Amino acid sequence: MTGAEYIAEFLHQRGVQNVFLITGGACAFIVDAIHRHKDLKYTCFQHEQACAMAADSIYRIDKNVGVTVATSGPGATNLITGIACSYFDSIPSFHITGQVNQTEAANFLGAQVRQAGFQETNIVDMVKPITKYAVQIKNGNELKKELIKAWNLAISDRKGPVLLDIPMNVQKEEVGDIIEYYPPEEENSVINIDQINAFFKDGKRPLVLFGAGVGLAGVAKNVEKWLIESKIPFVTSWNGCTYFNHNIDNFYGKLGVYGDRSANFLIQNCDRLLVLGSRLDNRQRSGSIKNFAISGKVMVIDVDIEELKKYKKEEYETINANLKHIPFEKISPVNIENEWKDFADDLKKQYFGKDLSLFSVANNTLSPYKVVQKINKLIKDDAIVVADDGANLCWVFKAFHVTNHILYTAGGNSPMGYSFPASIGAALHAPERQIIAFTGDGSMQMNIQELQTMRYHNLNIKLFILNNDGYGIIKQFQDLYFESRYAATGYGYSCPDFKKIVEAYDIKYFNINSLEDVTKEIFDYQGPAVINVNLHQNTLIEPKLELGKPIHDQYPYISGDEFEKNSKYCKNTRLKD
Amino acid sequence: MTGAEYIAEFLHQRGVQNVFLITGGACAFIVDAIHRHKDLKYTCFQHEQACAMAADSIYRIDKNVGVTVATSGPGATNLITGIACSYFDSIPSFHITGQVNQTEAANFLGAQVRQAGFQETNIVDMVKPITKYAVQIKNGNELKKELIKAWNLAISDRKGPVLLDIPMNVQKEEVGDIIEYYPPEEENSVINIDQINAFFKDGKRPLVLFGAGVGLAGVAKNVEKWLIESKIPFVTSWNGCTYFNHNIDNFYGKLGVYGDRSANFLIQNCDRLLVLGSRLDNRQRSGSIKNFAISGKVMVIDVDIEELKKYKKEEYETINANLKHIPFEKISPVNIENEWKDFADDLKKQYFGKDLSLFSVANNTLSPYKVVQKINKLIKDDAIVVADDGANLCWVFKAFHVTNHILYTAGGNSPMGYSFPASIGAALHAPERQIIAFTGDGSMQMNIQELQTMRYHNLNIKLFILNNDGYGIIKQFQDLYFESRYAATGYGYSCPDFKKIVEAYDIKYFNINSLEDVTKEIFDYQGPAVINVNLHQNTLIEPKLELGKPIHDQYPYISGDEFEKNSKYCKNTRLKD
Repeated sequence: MTGAEYIAEFLHQRGVQNVFLITGGACAFIVDAIHRHKDLKYTCFQHEQACAMAADSIYRIDKNVGVTVATSGPGATNLITGIACSYFDSIPSFHITGQVNQTEAANFLGAQVRQAGFQETNIVDMVKPITKYAVQIKNGNELKKELIKAWNLAISDRKGPVLLDIPMNVQKEEVGDIIEYYPPEEENSVINIDQINAFFKDGKRPLVLFGAGVGLAGVAKNVEKWLIESKIPFVTSWNGCTYFNHNIDNFYGKLGVYGDRSANFLIQNCDRLLVLGSRLDNRQRSGSIKNFAISGKVMVIDVDIEELKKYKKEEYETINANLKHIPFEKISPVNIENEWKDFADDLKKQYFGKDLSLFSVANNTLSPYKVVQKINKLIKDDAIVVADDGANLCWVFKAFHVTNHILYTAGGNSPMGYSFPASIGAALHAPERQIIAFTGDGSMQMNIQELQTMRYHNLNIKLFILNNDGYGIIKQFQDLYFESRYAATGYGYSCPDFKKIVEAYDIKYFNINSLEDVTKEIFDYQGPAVINVNLHQNTLIEPKLELGKPIHDQYPYISGDEFEKNSKYCKNTRLKD
Repeated sequence: MTGAEYIAEFLHQRGVQNVFLITGGACAFIVDAIHRHKDLKYTCFQHEQACAMAADSIYRIDKNVGVTVATSGPGATNLITGIACSYFDSIPSFHITGQVNQTEAANFLGAQVRQAGFQETNIVDMVKPITKYAVQIKNGNELKKELIKAWNLAISDRKGPVLLDIPMNVQKEEVGDIIEYYPPEEENSVINIDQINAFFKDGKRPLVLFGAGVGLAGVAKNVEKWLIESKIPFVTSWNGCTYFNHNIDNFYGKLGVYGDRSANFLIQNCDRLLVLGSRLDNRQRSGSIKNFAISGKVMVIDVDIEELKKYKKEEYETINANLKHIPFEKISPVNIENEWKDFADDLKKQYFGKDLSLFSVANNTLSPYKVVQKINKLIKDDAIVVADDGANLCWVFKAFHVTNHILYTAGGNSPMGYSFPASIGAALHAPERQIIAFTGDGSMQMNIQELQTMRYHNLNIKLFILNNDGYGIIKQFQDLYFESRYAATGYGYSCPDFKKIVEAYDIKYFNINSLEDVTKEIFDYQGPAVINVNLHQNTLIEPKLELGKPIHDQYPYISGDEFEKNSKYCKNTRLKD
């Protein structure tokens, strides 16, 4: 078996079915081995960034690991933005890059030259800041060990992407038989829950933050059961929200800068906040982190000890643990004051799924929130829904109500153009599912070349462009801080006539000018379709936090009375910058 | 003046006229400052990779430095493939990325977390392997100094790209007045030419290799004059060939794996090879570097001492010098045997501009070489011509005859899709020039989103797609080593109907099926146009070196007699692997 054949067989044995790739000289042996492997498929994309985003998407659907292959130099560097999506969101993905023959490499020549072999690039050092593990393989023996090591690192503890860089001579080398795979070493330590019991003991107004880490640890069903039975009110991060049914009574919405007021007010009013597998980044806590969870104690449980080092001991209590080692069912019943429950229910009634686009009401324009809600109703209960970035991301995550759907985006990296290739990954991986993607007119252009991939494979994706003719989220920022000078968002920005482009790719096109245009016909159509949703170019993201504010004080500002009422248990009210 | 305004003014004072960018939250202050600067323009692209490739292009035209601005995270990482183009080809380019506020950054929180601020990414460490200098700026004072330092590093000695990563708070900081710029410190040391004279002294069959370093050092005219007057036969690298008129009598072609047989045979037959500013990568020397310049001594002059460390002392003599410090006019007259001149002339007569596409003759198909030659005749003498990668690059560089043209590609990085955004950079920077770009059908898709940029700015570019329906250069490789299994090049590969796509962008389209279709009308058309050249899908690159062969033994193989005659002075003939 050659190194290249070994890689193909290893991937097959790990359950990989389809590799996303673009070929090139330095990876041609690997691509050929995949081509010849009877149980492996591969899909050619039009740009490697799309391969990496599609691969990132796979694990978010059903915990299979996405795999890419790219050639040396530009092939490898083109993967980077997609790999970063996996890293920041703790998604395992597996990336294989071809590299020049070792005898042609700079190292071999013994000089610190910029490049020796054609398209030689030090991809390993370049991706170190965005991978759990990246290594160049020196020989066949090392290849066998490193494949296992890299795979296991990707899928264990705090997960993430890995990259193996394989010189051509190693691809061609005779490496002998496959060695036995061993799964990642797992600690079986059960965490003592006394600390959690003690944390809740004297509280009256508990709240749980359900982070993506719950789902990534594979304990979403456990935690959901515990939350339902314990009745503790809970909120979620955006990346966490896909792991449970939003109809659960004691779920109160998504927190954050663009989050639900109900969730944000609860964060500020609770006296105990238990954070499960969420890194509390500044789109959750806001830039004003001292003014987060102002009325209570906070406990954070995270698998990554570095995430816990962010918190001063006197501020947050922490437990460094994999959530799968916590016996949630054994946690003592948590005291919940009736008043707290009523308070929470009242907030939910006021804001949850309701607090949407005053702009559209005031200007009698199409509300993106209502479009998303209508789509939500028309699609299947278990559809896969991928959101992109910027304003369109906010609109989707604000308005979408998850039941059995899978809803995701690349939250931490949030590149323009993620959702479309991610939806292609989803459609290739789960062709039996309904696939919906949302993007913006700016973001659509970032991976517009993949219309060809969607067409060629006749993928049954419904891709919605929430088209506000410019970078809406930046325009809104410019309204606030640049006297509405729309530098590079309105002025200088342009986008094509998507109808013409989409039809040129021989793809079905729909146009939406009003809520009535969002019809069942769109979803009944079998095959790839792009649906352009025409929005007013100043359509706002609402509610939205302005710089320096605590998370419960979002624009559009509610009345002083309403704010006071919602801040009933807050130690401070109307916090200033 | 804020940090952002300072950057804008600094760029203006350095002669920058147009910044290539996409905006985003973390760079919005810089973009706004550029927008407000009365003497600066900016152009919005549809993907940051295109910004960086367009910026790379500028210096290759007239020694102005191209500048990009991108936002943190994906904005920054999207630049990477373009930045690498500059690095490997020693092109100065200047890249500015926005970064999250320092108080939101992982460093500030004192933990080694993957990400703290939204879209925070450690771009500085990521680009270190492909920049001369990359640094994150901590405050306004540092900003002022680092702008000068980075600029000067980019443009001095062996040139290259630099990147400054600017946190939002530094962009907003009041930084006071502009400090005085000082140009890079220059050694004025004149190199003693005795070593060069001694090198040539006892030789009879001298040859000079004119590398891109000659042009980058700004001494192309000097060296050209010296070569014309000294009558020393010379050859060139691909990146070097743009710096002189190919009509010069003693120019014998481009060397290399895909080079001219005339140049390659001269390399092997000469007894003295002086290499000026060329790094002799393995597309020049082939993978079989021991079999390069087999009959003579070699001297290499290079500004980068690391490039010289590649060579063993007993193999090549070296001089570490900036070519601008060498008084070429003072080099003693070089002995050139008449027989050597005749031998060289005979090779030139046989092969130079003639040794083209037997495939097309044998199969009666359209020859890409003849298409390029005809375009060469129809365009202006000083047109800017940009080639892409793979087969289309080889066809263009093989067939194109430079007089006053500027002809370039991103030689070392050679990403798919370089030429189109590079030609946009050229058209924005030099709108008075005729701009021609060549690409392939695979490569066209990599930056197809920039059709919108070309259309919006009505750029007068003629973009030729040398369309062989697949990755031709890889197919040829697969013919040789994979029994013509066209994995991911024929099988699995697809491309759209370019006519429909181009016209959907409201761009003029021409179709070329025969040489007669290459008409003056195409070039008379004012405005953006895409010209699809339909080639047979197996059209070959000819001549082409196979793995392990010395550079004079290219496919298609010439007769033994012809090979013997052309190897007259070779110490070894028909070298084996």
